[in-house]
Amino acid sequence: MGEPIIHKTKVVVRYQETDQMGVAHHSVYPIWFEQGRTEFIRDCGFPYGKMEADGLYLPLIEVTCKFKSFSRYEDELQILTRLSDVTKTRLSFMYEVVKDGLTIALGATVHVYANRMLKPINLYKYMPELYGVFCNIAGKEALCTAAT
Amino acid sequence: MGEPIIHKTKVVVRYQETDQMGVAHHSVYPIWFEQGRTEFIRDCGFPYGKMEADGLYLPLIEVTCKFKSFSRYEDELQILTRLSDVTKTRLSFMYEVVKDGLTIALGATVHVYANRMLKPINLYKYMPELYGVFCNIAGKEALCTAAT
Amino acid sequence: MGEPIIHKTKVVVRYQETDQMGVAHHSVYPIWFEQGRTEFIRDCGFPYGKMEADGLYLPLIEVTCKFKSFSRYEDELQILTRLSDVTKTRLSFMYEVVKDGLTIALGATVHVYANRMLKPINLYKYMPELYGVFCNIAGKEALCTAAT
Amino acid sequence: MGEPIIHKTKVVVRYQETDQMGVAHHSVYPIWFEQGRTEFIRDCGFPYGKMEADGLYLPLIEVTCKFKSFSRYEDELQILTRLSDVTKTRLSFMYEVVKDGLTIALGATVHVYANRMLKPINLYKYMPELYGVFCNIAGKEALCTAAT
Repeated sequence: MGEPIIHKTKVVVRYQETDQMGVAHHSVYPIWFEQGRTEFIRDCGFPYGKMEADGLYLPLIEVTCKFKSFSRYEDELQILTRLSDVTKTRLSFMYEVVKDGLTIALGATVHVYANRMLKPINLYKYMPELYGVFCNIAGKEALCTAAT
Repeated sequence: MGEPIIHKTKVVVRYQETDQMGVAHHSVYPIWFEQGRTEFIRDCGFPYGKMEADGLYLPLIEVTCKFKSFSRYEDELQILTRLSDVTKTRLSFMYEVVKDGLTIALGATVHVYANRMLKPINLYKYMPELYGVFCNIAGKEALCTAAT
Repeated sequence: MGEPIIHKTKVVVRYQETDQMGVAHHSVYPIWFEQGRTEFIRDCGFPYGKMEADGLYLPLIEVTCKFKSFSRYEDELQILTRLSDVTKTRLSFMYEVVKDGLTIALGATVHVYANRMLKPINLYKYMPELYGVFCNIAGKEALCTAAT
Repeated sequence: MGEPIIHKTKVVVRYQETDQMGVAHHSVYPIWFEQGRTEFIRDCGFPYGKMEADGLYLPLIEVTCKFKSFSRYEDELQILTRLSDVTKTRLSFMYEVVKDGLTIALGATVHVYANRMLKPINLYKYMPELYGVFCNIAGKEALCTAAT
């Protein structure tokens, strides 16, 4: 049972991402989370593009974001991503958006495992090896074998 | 104490809103919520553009979306919006995305009242009349005077 | 040889589409053009979603937009779309964005016909009937049979 | 009279930027151009955010993009940006999008100088020093003093 890996991704706020309030629009944060998630699982050796090519999709079924502060054009942000939970049917990630050392937003996403038709599948049955890898990454080796 | 108003907005999924999974990307739903919210408060007689011109901003501090199903290119969707809560410092909205009579997503947003500098303000003190209007719209006439 | 059909689509500027300059960001106009194009060809009886299902794709190879003025949050705009040219290998559309009776932007897109692998195809050979329909819509019945 | 500076920006295609055709949507390219332009002028010592704070805006009046090929999710791209022309009233940029050493898209944008009210201004009169700097960057030192 290990520590969960925390992945750091840098993003710089694009002009197009701002709105007339002068801040990055809230709908951009889920896109940054996705970028963090992409880099995270690629760095773990499982690029998501390859997963889809192999027939495994991870459609999102829930997204949450809470804002403590704003970000503005050209701000450099860190997106901290970690795999917060793994079950036989779902993956959960948590995100923290950091600007100048301060947390400006916290997010979470939940995903199901699905096939090409976007029908949910049980990863433990379908790809037991990858399921084990996800458990390892989440630092939940022991628990996960009993998880639903 | 009345019934909360439920506003209906029609959107049609744009091609640009799809992703390589062949469905509308999840980051588009908060944008549709915003469109629903815009039309809702405009129909209530308080266009948000005018609010900002008058110095009242409603920055979002929380957004949640749960997905039960997908939407695809050219799908016609109904966005149902209602003002779910009003306090002296916050506004909360709830959303339902309906396709062919079935709910495909549920959402919620929380907003603070803020001035031009995006500093939070107490609407009850700053614009008591508008605060009362929001309470009426939310169907919470009696409760809201005691709310924090 | 007839008059080209001009299709009108209404769009209302979304808050998310604005930027910190307080106007709709220029990258949104190609998305509105796409919305105009989608409705145009659907109204002609050939929904683009069905075309793709039938194996015909229309990837864009060129887009231009010139701006004469701006649009702002909640502005109601008309997108005028017409099929400006048809050849055996390409389709060209022209767009006009109108606000309060004034043209604020002019656009154009060029598309190739392609198969599922996004390889260009000759529509005249591949789907001669649809090619004829496109010529009719463009008001170029006589000319198009000789076009390259 | 020098050589124009060519600036290189790296972007990686985001999942949200793809569409159901499985490629990066064409409306994303102007956003990448903007990112290239932002980094280019920041590296020249004139961050655009500071320009706006000083009252100088560069609204875009024309954008063009021609596509030779596609880009896909997770593709790493180089955006090459250069200042192609400077006059007393306009700035023009050119862009090249390169993937694995091959040019997949070519773009151009034209901007006017404007004040806070987005009214066009003559930069030569308004900020002669900055005008000179832009000419230098474009490698057009001698020509620009005579330009309109």
